[in-house]
Amino acid sequence: MIDGRLLIAGQALQTETRFSAIDAASGEPFGVDFSVSTPEHVDAACAAARDAAPVFARDAAARADLLEAIGAEILALGDGLIETAMRETGLPRARLEGERMRTVNQLRLFAAELHGFGWQDEVFEPADLARVPPRPSLRRINRAVGPVAVFGASNFPLAFSVAGGDTAAALAAGCPVVVKGHSAHPGTGEYVARAVTKAVADSGFPTGVFSFLPGNNRALGAALVGHPAIKAVGFTGSRAGGLALIAQAQARPEPIPVYAEMSSINPVLLLPAAMAARGGALARAYAASLAMGAGQFCTNPGLLLAVDGPDLDAFLATAAAALDTAAPQVMLSPGICRAYHHGVSALDGREGVATILRQNAPEDRCGAAIFAVDAARFIADPALREEVFGVSGMVVRCASPDDFSAVLASLEGQLTASFHGDEADWPLAQALLPIMADKAGRVIANEWPTGVEVSRAMVHGGPFPATSDTRTTSVGTLAMARFLRPVCFQNMPFAID
Amino acid sequence: MIDGRLLIAGQALQTETRFSAIDAASGEPFGVDFSVSTPEHVDAACAAARDAAPVFARDAAARADLLEAIGAEILALGDGLIETAMRETGLPRARLEGERMRTVNQLRLFAAELHGFGWQDEVFEPADLARVPPRPSLRRINRAVGPVAVFGASNFPLAFSVAGGDTAAALAAGCPVVVKGHSAHPGTGEYVARAVTKAVADSGFPTGVFSFLPGNNRALGAALVGHPAIKAVGFTGSRAGGLALIAQAQARPEPIPVYAEMSSINPVLLLPAAMAARGGALARAYAASLAMGAGQFCTNPGLLLAVDGPDLDAFLATAAAALDTAAPQVMLSPGICRAYHHGVSALDGREGVATILRQNAPEDRCGAAIFAVDAARFIADPALREEVFGVSGMVVRCASPDDFSAVLASLEGQLTASFHGDEADWPLAQALLPIMADKAGRVIANEWPTGVEVSRAMVHGGPFPATSDTRTTSVGTLAMARFLRPVCFQNMPFAID
Repeated sequence: MIDGRLLIAGQALQTETRFSAIDAASGEPFGVDFSVSTPEHVDAACAAARDAAPVFARDAAARADLLEAIGAEILALGDGLIETAMRETGLPRARLEGERMRTVNQLRLFAAELHGFGWQDEVFEPADLARVPPRPSLRRINRAVGPVAVFGASNFPLAFSVAGGDTAAALAAGCPVVVKGHSAHPGTGEYVARAVTKAVADSGFPTGVFSFLPGNNRALGAALVGHPAIKAVGFTGSRAGGLALIAQAQARPEPIPVYAEMSSINPVLLLPAAMAARGGALARAYAASLAMGAGQFCTNPGLLLAVDGPDLDAFLATAAAALDTAAPQVMLSPGICRAYHHGVSALDGREGVATILRQNAPEDRCGAAIFAVDAARFIADPALREEVFGVSGMVVRCASPDDFSAVLASLEGQLTASFHGDEADWPLAQALLPIMADKAGRVIANEWPTGVEVSRAMVHGGPFPATSDTRTTSVGTLAMARFLRPVCFQNMPFAID
Repeated sequence: MIDGRLLIAGQALQTETRFSAIDAASGEPFGVDFSVSTPEHVDAACAAARDAAPVFARDAAARADLLEAIGAEILALGDGLIETAMRETGLPRARLEGERMRTVNQLRLFAAELHGFGWQDEVFEPADLARVPPRPSLRRINRAVGPVAVFGASNFPLAFSVAGGDTAAALAAGCPVVVKGHSAHPGTGEYVARAVTKAVADSGFPTGVFSFLPGNNRALGAALVGHPAIKAVGFTGSRAGGLALIAQAQARPEPIPVYAEMSSINPVLLLPAAMAARGGALARAYAASLAMGAGQFCTNPGLLLAVDGPDLDAFLATAAAALDTAAPQVMLSPGICRAYHHGVSALDGREGVATILRQNAPEDRCGAAIFAVDAARFIADPALREEVFGVSGMVVRCASPDDFSAVLASLEGQLTASFHGDEADWPLAQALLPIMADKAGRVIANEWPTGVEVSRAMVHGGPFPATSDTRTTSVGTLAMARFLRPVCFQNMPFAID
């Protein structure tokens, strides 16, 4: 079903330079070799996207059909997709099957959105010739920005990759998409790219609507972001990676936006009454949220705030015990696992940092870790606020609830901020709500941040460095707005549209 | 009424370093000396803005009242404002009185918008506990980004300055504003700043909602853009100035958006049937639009495209005669006038460029100029596409209508693109509409671009370098969206809001 080719506007091409997929569990290469795309391929894909853009932008109903068809083609890929993804990412079957359904439902949600008119945000103001000076008719409507480059994430090989949220949003908005395939799941990427390519071919739209460029070098991404036909970039990944793309996009003769989702430690406040009433249940739920998917979620609860004392000690003991019963997990790639061990080692023994748990784990597996500090130390040491991607939790022992806002104020922007509180905690939650909303794109009561609903109301975004543009989201229908721009038509004859 | 003080959160302060207003017509200093704000003043203003932000963001109805009150206070300033503005800018009384009304109506429009709910873009999705997994309640709503820095324009000392569009939009969105006063109209600025300060004091909002920092050096603007309390910047001015602010804002530890409106030559297509039927009337209207306000409009029709031949020759003769009958005009500042003479001199005699009109004018006045080139030369020479701020028009003689799209394709992003056409021209207009909409934020039929309606449907924006963010506008109610960000509240108890 897959043979390591890149896909440019419906054409499958092979290159001489190749790279291998890596089995996440063993660290060994396996399967077919994958073609490495070159700058010439970027040129061809972007030129095809530019040529396809005007036709693609015009027919929203046909785009809705295309999105539905992509979903159907992904489901039709069958178990080969799941097995390849399991091997490339180390993620378990149930998770990947769930992620596949999430990906398909995401495509369907955008299709449904296209059957409404809200995304166009159309405003018509009739002429008023009696006014002095006469007022012209004005019609404002959203319009596709043009071809979009998508850089998928390693941690969601389906839902945030080739046909993931960025691609679905861009296609829905009427923008052709050129995907830079992630080198950590090239086979998964090719499977899905073939599904999209087939759906585009069947749609009657120009084939340039979609291209898939796998590769394992940075020059490929740079060529893509630098191409004049590309008008916006969607990226999910590391802070360093996102910042490099943003700098390059800003330095173009025509700067373009990079919608980068980068780094978040997702603070969770455990309020006193809830801790007293149900600390044990919270501890078990925390452990489950922290360890889910080897902690490889952008909404992983990396930071806890609670008032120091016996309730917190009991909470930590329960959480540590729950985490320690689970076996160390396979991570997405050897590089991510190395970075995790490096991050945990840097915290273990750092001044003022107590190690609550550091699970014994081989160097190719992710063992759970919990660290604790007091509020003053946490605020004084920026290194304690850096994301450690994996099952690593930082706990701030606050002297009183008065410390909560100072700790929150020390944070950079976040995807989420959560609190767990019972009725007696609500005045405190109310007082903290403004700073939580200042710091995050989503504020959560009495739930853990690791579930992200795909819906109209979702905001998966937040101030820098959670994302590069706090006015947007990368999950939910509002994500289309990143790839639309308003245009006003003044005094237009009815015959012209 | 004015005494050269800066205004920080309701406090009028004097500094030792001072600068003078310059009489635009004579180039001589006049009136009181104005205080130069320092980085310490920036600190004080931004801290006050940060402290005022939460309260200010909460009460939209009171903000609407504030916007109305600012308008009333501006009207109450009386003729002192107009006379000062006339002297500082060289703009005539009727224009400034009209601009004052436009400014007041703009404030009223945002006030009216706040009485509706559209600007909040609220979406509520109820919980579904029966679903597996349960679906939480989600409420998405727009929220103020925080304090905004505003850099006003020299060419609209009222409508795009201290209480102009950016300030009105930011205040409407719930963001405190710190204005960097423009050194070309410090007295006008102080007048309006006093009106805003009085309205804020009467409103009961914290005084930190508004500060006015005059100055005549770049360090002031840099300190403002670099201040951590500032969350967004509104700027209208030169391309170099805008790019410098953007680079600085991107290099902050927390990068912030700069909404810069910079450079546009506003192509106008004269289609063949309209030229044949009413070339003379079009020529007179063109001359009026080009010369209005000494051409100092961001929507000035700096570029004409027409098919070469007798109709175009007659058009140019009529336009040149109309322009040449008017006296050379005072410009906004000696620096702007110098730049205009430099720009016109660089075009006069340039290879392939014919000078249709170069009005004889003293070096402190703006004489009208029209230049013509063929399409190939225009496309080959990027210098011919640069904005010359003033009464200077470039005309591209196209061999046939087939040249129109190639010429349009050679352009950078524009605020506007217009066509003049009669019924026989409509198929051509229809064919050119997509590229016009790709290149500009507003597409205009059979009108000139120099009128910009302040309304809900207006887009005063466009692709780079017309603006730095093609998804926005700096005129009309949609301008609020620049200073809002969506936040999602998940599973929130009813008691907490």
